[in-house]
Amino acid sequence: MLIAQNGINEGSEAEVYGWVLSIREQKTISFIIVYENRKQVQLVINDKKLMSSQLKQNSVIWAKGIIKITDKAPNGFEIHVNSMKVLSKPKKLPPFNIMSRDIPTLDLRLDFRALDLRRPYNIDLFTLRSKVLHYFREYLISKDFLEVQTPKIIATASEGGAALFPLMYYDKQAFLAQSPQLYKEELIMSFERVFEIGPIFRAEPSRTLKHLSEAISLDIEAAFYKNEDLMDFLENMIKYVINKLYEKDSEALKRIKAPILDVSKKFPRYSYSEVVSWVNKNLEEIHEGDDLSSKHLEAFGNHVGGFYFIKDWPLKLKPFYIQPKDGDYSNSFDLMYKGLELSSGGERVHDPTLLRKGLKRSGLSAKSFKYHLEVYNYGMPPHGGFGLGVDRFMMVVTGVENIREVVLYPRDVKRLIP
Amino acid sequence: MLIAQNGINEGSEAEVYGWVLSIREQKTISFIIVYENRKQVQLVINDKKLMSSQLKQNSVIWAKGIIKITDKAPNGFEIHVNSMKVLSKPKKLPPFNIMSRDIPTLDLRLDFRALDLRRPYNIDLFTLRSKVLHYFREYLISKDFLEVQTPKIIATASEGGAALFPLMYYDKQAFLAQSPQLYKEELIMSFERVFEIGPIFRAEPSRTLKHLSEAISLDIEAAFYKNEDLMDFLENMIKYVINKLYEKDSEALKRIKAPILDVSKKFPRYSYSEVVSWVNKNLEEIHEGDDLSSKHLEAFGNHVGGFYFIKDWPLKLKPFYIQPKDGDYSNSFDLMYKGLELSSGGERVHDPTLLRKGLKRSGLSAKSFKYHLEVYNYGMPPHGGFGLGVDRFMMVVTGVENIREVVLYPRDVKRLIP
Repeated sequence: MLIAQNGINEGSEAEVYGWVLSIREQKTISFIIVYENRKQVQLVINDKKLMSSQLKQNSVIWAKGIIKITDKAPNGFEIHVNSMKVLSKPKKLPPFNIMSRDIPTLDLRLDFRALDLRRPYNIDLFTLRSKVLHYFREYLISKDFLEVQTPKIIATASEGGAALFPLMYYDKQAFLAQSPQLYKEELIMSFERVFEIGPIFRAEPSRTLKHLSEAISLDIEAAFYKNEDLMDFLENMIKYVINKLYEKDSEALKRIKAPILDVSKKFPRYSYSEVVSWVNKNLEEIHEGDDLSSKHLEAFGNHVGGFYFIKDWPLKLKPFYIQPKDGDYSNSFDLMYKGLELSSGGERVHDPTLLRKGLKRSGLSAKSFKYHLEVYNYGMPPHGGFGLGVDRFMMVVTGVENIREVVLYPRDVKRLIP
Repeated sequence: MLIAQNGINEGSEAEVYGWVLSIREQKTISFIIVYENRKQVQLVINDKKLMSSQLKQNSVIWAKGIIKITDKAPNGFEIHVNSMKVLSKPKKLPPFNIMSRDIPTLDLRLDFRALDLRRPYNIDLFTLRSKVLHYFREYLISKDFLEVQTPKIIATASEGGAALFPLMYYDKQAFLAQSPQLYKEELIMSFERVFEIGPIFRAEPSRTLKHLSEAISLDIEAAFYKNEDLMDFLENMIKYVINKLYEKDSEALKRIKAPILDVSKKFPRYSYSEVVSWVNKNLEEIHEGDDLSSKHLEAFGNHVGGFYFIKDWPLKLKPFYIQPKDGDYSNSFDLMYKGLELSSGGERVHDPTLLRKGLKRSGLSAKSFKYHLEVYNYGMPPHGGFGLGVDRFMMVVTGVENIREVVLYPRDVKRLIP
């Protein structure tokens, strides 16, 4: 908290509440960098008596002094302190120094996550994450999408029984929602265009660099949108957010050494069949209809680079609600970034008879989807949508390789604490 | 979806995609009200051949025609249709007419929620809800609060063992988060001011008009905020959101007959002891230290009216993390609206030794909070915060008496579907 009643002006008085990031003591003068609300403020202390022995890195302090404008300080000014108090001091030696060049292992850092988040890198990273959420919402609201909140405790698996967390809901069996899929589809019947940014839960039994048991998904659903409209929308939204970051947050991006993402050109759109041909020519023999392995996707991603779509997937590789196209194919797409799947979407079935066929194809019982099927009897418009992994998008923005880096308190098969 | 390439101008061509809210057929002319993206558009049809027999309420249609500006139509214009197509027609007679004056029971409406949400009342209500979320965020971001997302699957109950949903997390016991309490407190250590808007889960065994098993909570936590600062902040945020609604959304508020909320004056702040005195004088004898029953709160709320705070609660009635004040009392508050609790907050303990005492007082084991206590050893600043029930706030804004009305798919002890 910075209180500068007359603004940041040479010679005016200011108070600052914050925690100590670093202390540099010289013979007659000391420099202290304090973090106040995610911004660094430099304190200058001339009076040795003020430098309390209790003052250490990570101490929380209050200080009062006179502002001096200078280019040498982090935010263009420093405070020449004339009084100071320690409000909270560390009781223990921290397990790692947040200013060390040797970054401890991720596991150790996650064990002490609250402290790890004090690293300047993480302050920038999570400030950027908050901005990204804001820019996504800004875009969606400007396109007249309604923000909705659907239940996370549900009675039926949205996409089949795999990877679900079951729980007891009073005296009934229930599950944590894998996605807001069925709800968002039902909602476009009334609201035409909806979005949700919220948690999704997947009981992923393996531990990879790009999967979490609890993730944040940005979901949209829109009546009357065709496959190409959806890809256009997603592409424009991504470009809006990235351009906004470059416009507003370039300093923080530079500090964390984020990669420069080129979004000046149209994202290429390859059909699944084109990717199969490329794999056959460059990697190994696979067949039309086979799923693309992560090896294939990665190789193709390195070949193409940047953002691109893979569209028109075989119907059998897609969930029951995806709209068929030309028999065995579907009106669907994945948004990829160098082999990493960021989003999956497509046109949906809106005819209840066709939806029953989809359930049968996927080996699901119509009985479990009784309520959902019933809704389709009352005039469901043609529609489509996608889900975008916010955490994965943050991996792309920040350039980190482990998804746990961009989540405050990640959850995986091994990690439930903190 | 409305496509009017030359804008809404007299004589220009427009296409509209939407669903039919109502049909009024006269001898030579028909009027159709279509909902396109939550806005009503009037279609005028002169050509009887165009009025297909398939066209019913709830049909989804596409229509094309010429715009005519007129005050008589819902949005100041109507479309004189020259071609029309039915894109999706109801397969079954709906269980209730969404335009009926006799509103079906809430249970029936929730059984067919997707259809119920087509009632113009609900379109307005959930549009307002989306706006309220947006205005809250606007306020919080303007005050430099960081948006965070904390895990919903947690290892330890935040506030003791009551009212938790347990689940199996791989091979471990886990719970659904009752609140982001411990996480948001830890996060202010790095980020100073944070907020989260997300689901919370409470296994409420009873079924009341103001409780849900899954609700949306707006949580803030801020370093260096005292009890009075927190009340000021909450009061100003509520006033900002309500004034913004009156400024931007007065038409929708009028249509749903929302009550007029007076937020021109400062919200009164009563101490717990003052409320006890009032109850003793006006209702029945209770003792200093007793909890206030819903009967007491309701009577006091009717006496006071509007928004008000009850502060300085006995420490023993508050969770372990609340900061003591004058021995048996605490630096805490509830924000009330006519007897309904909307928010609960206060200053928190930041000293680990005092926090251990709080746990003991609440009958909780320090062992279960090992990780959390450890964090307090590394320089936790003084801090405070509150949680605000977004659904309850929507009850106040809309004037409905049952919290289920303001939630898309409510969850309670009896309702898990849809």
